[in-house]
Amino acid sequence: MGGSDRRRRGAKYSRIEAVAGNGLLDRRALLGRGVIYAGAMSTGALGSFAAAAEPLKDAPLTDAPWSREPGAAIEPYERPSRFEKTVVRTLSNPNGQPGAQGARTPHHLVNGVITPNGLHFVVSYGGAPDIDPDKHRLAIHGMVKQPLVFTVDALARYPMVTRVTFLECGGNSAPLFSPQPLQANVQALHGLASCAEWTGVKLSTLLEETGIDPKARWFIAEGADAPHLSRSVPLKKGLDDAMIALYQNGERLMPANGYPMRLLLPGYEGNMNVKYLRRIKLVEEPAMSYWESKVYAQILPNGKAYQFYLLQEVKSFITQPSPGLTLKGPGLYEIAGITYSGAGRISRVMVSADGGRSWAEAALQEPILSKAFTRFRMPWRWDGSAVVLQSRATDEAGNVQPTRAEFVAQRGELKTVPPVAAVLNQHCNAITSWAVDSAGEVKHVYA
Amino acid sequence: MGGSDRRRRGAKYSRIEAVAGNGLLDRRALLGRGVIYAGAMSTGALGSFAAAAEPLKDAPLTDAPWSREPGAAIEPYERPSRFEKTVVRTLSNPNGQPGAQGARTPHHLVNGVITPNGLHFVVSYGGAPDIDPDKHRLAIHGMVKQPLVFTVDALARYPMVTRVTFLECGGNSAPLFSPQPLQANVQALHGLASCAEWTGVKLSTLLEETGIDPKARWFIAEGADAPHLSRSVPLKKGLDDAMIALYQNGERLMPANGYPMRLLLPGYEGNMNVKYLRRIKLVEEPAMSYWESKVYAQILPNGKAYQFYLLQEVKSFITQPSPGLTLKGPGLYEIAGITYSGAGRISRVMVSADGGRSWAEAALQEPILSKAFTRFRMPWRWDGSAVVLQSRATDEAGNVQPTRAEFVAQRGELKTVPPVAAVLNQHCNAITSWAVDSAGEVKHVYA
Repeated sequence: MGGSDRRRRGAKYSRIEAVAGNGLLDRRALLGRGVIYAGAMSTGALGSFAAAAEPLKDAPLTDAPWSREPGAAIEPYERPSRFEKTVVRTLSNPNGQPGAQGARTPHHLVNGVITPNGLHFVVSYGGAPDIDPDKHRLAIHGMVKQPLVFTVDALARYPMVTRVTFLECGGNSAPLFSPQPLQANVQALHGLASCAEWTGVKLSTLLEETGIDPKARWFIAEGADAPHLSRSVPLKKGLDDAMIALYQNGERLMPANGYPMRLLLPGYEGNMNVKYLRRIKLVEEPAMSYWESKVYAQILPNGKAYQFYLLQEVKSFITQPSPGLTLKGPGLYEIAGITYSGAGRISRVMVSADGGRSWAEAALQEPILSKAFTRFRMPWRWDGSAVVLQSRATDEAGNVQPTRAEFVAQRGELKTVPPVAAVLNQHCNAITSWAVDSAGEVKHVYA
Repeated sequence: MGGSDRRRRGAKYSRIEAVAGNGLLDRRALLGRGVIYAGAMSTGALGSFAAAAEPLKDAPLTDAPWSREPGAAIEPYERPSRFEKTVVRTLSNPNGQPGAQGARTPHHLVNGVITPNGLHFVVSYGGAPDIDPDKHRLAIHGMVKQPLVFTVDALARYPMVTRVTFLECGGNSAPLFSPQPLQANVQALHGLASCAEWTGVKLSTLLEETGIDPKARWFIAEGADAPHLSRSVPLKKGLDDAMIALYQNGERLMPANGYPMRLLLPGYEGNMNVKYLRRIKLVEEPAMSYWESKVYAQILPNGKAYQFYLLQEVKSFITQPSPGLTLKGPGLYEIAGITYSGAGRISRVMVSADGGRSWAEAALQEPILSKAFTRFRMPWRWDGSAVVLQSRATDEAGNVQPTRAEFVAQRGELKTVPPVAAVLNQHCNAITSWAVDSAGEVKHVYA
């Protein structure tokens, strides 16, 4: 590469034409040199991103205290910097009073697709039990040839699999059922979804050991903690990609995420991924447990309810910018967000900066994994005017995220604004809209 | 699938023929039903893995204390169970005395390919500094058109990328230079390598902003902590996949891993991935810094040294079983391990149970990512006799892991056994051998 090519780089973004309304730029600009500006003239001007940086004056460095003194001794198990103490889950029930406890992932403050274990979302009805793994047992029984009991150590002998998958509470995004847009950030609206690398034993491997009665069609999974949450799962899913997960991002499961083992049903709603799994019973028909008939049944406008609404459908939302992250004046920004589908891989994310009138295709970060978070990114030149940002995802099965208007037309909306998301409002995957005003403030709106 | 097919499953592994000495089984057995035993007869016998489980007697469940009482309130930032307190990094210098501090990943106790942030390895010369991110600056200067200074907030404006990559200290596996096999576990031998998902701004994006003098060929990267470790890096690498990393597994970098920003050079030896990055200076020639000419120069048997030995070469090691993980009697086991190469993707891992006389191909967990950990797995039927386990990896560039004998013939070995791994013994990627005795104890041997 010659020197003149190198010098041409400076003005890269300033010459890129918008590809949709209000300054959305071609995603190929993110691919770097050679793609967009191969034939561009040298201008000698800095790219507009440089507004974010400052020209270097004087000596490049002044020594801060940490540049002159030894740091702290390295710890056996490391934790984030004290300067990151605001990067935590928000709690719906911080004192652990009886009833549900929610802990939401701060999507506006994290990045990539892996949710660190400290920040994985939780919905709990009984708190985090203090389970001794040596005393925990998993029984597989019911319509099997040989009922078996597994210890954690026994499971460690079996072949394992590793996969990255998201988990999402069926009640995530429930605030979008509200007739007025709740003024809340992305953590409050969509924080009951997270993504981790899980390792464990496939349920099919264990069922090969117990044998299966050919009449079995479902299994009931039950947790060992006090609420004994139980759910009916189609046996077909159990023989497909269901896993008894033992590790979360490499280490044993977190106490509020099922330690020492949980059922993992990639793409299925969160509560079916039963934590503290102590029992799998093969049966002919679903159990119609309290949890599935009462708690997690989505009631429709006509008074009927979906039965066994298993999949978490295609969704996306913009995390940067989002409420609380104020834009600091006109210029270039990256719009970034998260997308996922319980039906498989994401095939496309479109982004709009004019409330859905025009759209441009976002870049998807590789590798795009099935039933996992995928990060999307879009370069954007903001001119300082009021805009409305949206994202709309499509999965490989062809499912497209609906607008909120389309969604509530089918599923209904709440008549009153709830103080917290009502658990009965399930499976909202509507498009989220962020309004950016001329001061750079971001607000949740319906558009 | 008919009932008779289902009933056939039980005896799956018991009928699989060994494909290499001492009981290594066909990796396709891990793929599940239909592949190996499609035509197998129903035997009614349980698969041999069932020795790990127990038949279910009486009632399936007895209620433990955690099944009767509420658990703890959910915390804003979660930590592992108290029952996992032994899953920590081992420290070479736990009190943080002057000099190097190492913290090693417990590979025998984790799984998958992501190393959780609490357990990522560290080599530090100045401890973990307490850097205020609002006061930290990154300067890019030297042979550039416009020197620039970046704050953390400024970098957050730029387009980001996310990738999974391993980091490895050049001194990892140094105990294999010892003429006698050190009796140590996989954490002590290979614990200075870890793998994480990193998110940040490509260095090439920032260099497009500063512009580059066409005569520049290298850059010097320097850290802000007291040791000011500095390394020379070929500019070509900086324009390829080098990243200014801000996030580690979704959250901001850990304090001992470079918070608030580090250089990430996928595949290059650990110390070049400069932590607490405060300065990148473009230059014509390498700086020949103390760190590269004195500390991290590998001395060869003829007294000469490699200069700028950048890549971490293809490596693999078995993590389960490994020293400290005793086999509980003959039967089926899964041999599992980690493999990676700084040159790209892993193409194949072979496993031997007879000290290298015969080999069988291991299953590689998808997705296989470039310059990232890949987990390999191999089903094994142990008959209870003494065996020697090995793994040998090949990367997509065709590089093959050498035997230890081949390795020391070229690189030499230590004349005396060091109390700890001497830092001058760099870049060992020889095959590791674990001897399993008839009691199931695992020891490090040379074979």
